[in-house]
Amino acid sequence: MINRLQLAGAVARAPETRLNPAGIPLTRFALDHHSEQEEAGLRRQVQLRITVMATGDELSRRARCLQVGEHVTVTGFLQRTLTRNGQPRLVLHAQQLTTD
Amino acid sequence: MINRLQLAGAVARAPETRLNPAGIPLTRFALDHHSEQEEAGLRRQVQLRITVMATGDELSRRARCLQVGEHVTVTGFLQRTLTRNGQPRLVLHAQQLTTD
Repeated sequence: MINRLQLAGAVARAPETRLNPAGIPLTRFALDHHSEQEEAGLRRQVQLRITVMATGDELSRRARCLQVGEHVTVTGFLQRTLTRNGQPRLVLHAQQLTTD
Repeated sequence: MINRLQLAGAVARAPETRLNPAGIPLTRFALDHHSEQEEAGLRRQVQLRITVMATGDELSRRARCLQVGEHVTVTGFLQRTLTRNGQPRLVLHAQQLTTD
């Protein structure tokens, strides 16, 4: 079942790193995306913020070095998480990070 | 700025069609996705539900014919919307719909 998101944007909040319960490093940051996309033959302004999770030694280390405002393209998969008050939210689990 | 999501899943709620303020038909349905994805060398269970919007004569007509439980692969872009109580939520705006 395919689940693949490519999203470019700017780092909106400084990355935070922690170890997950299995002891694997995990860096999380917020990505702001603005673009124009085509829908039904019309151009449409698109704007969103999404949380990106970069897990594992290499990806986590690279994500940790990102600075607020820096442009990055993330490829990965969407996953559901729950916010502190139990609301479902979608986050992007990175498999690739490219800076411009 | 790239914003491209490919997501396969099953139709979770019957499609609903309306006209948007510009008089363009728009069909909305919920898509349930379950898969295994790789992250930091480990297999991980992924599960999410997302709202899909199919806008324009052709896409809207095709989406309207989908039945609950039917498998579909959607390609499009993510956009932010606000729920009735003002919470931001991500929806998938379809540019392509493929049934198996």
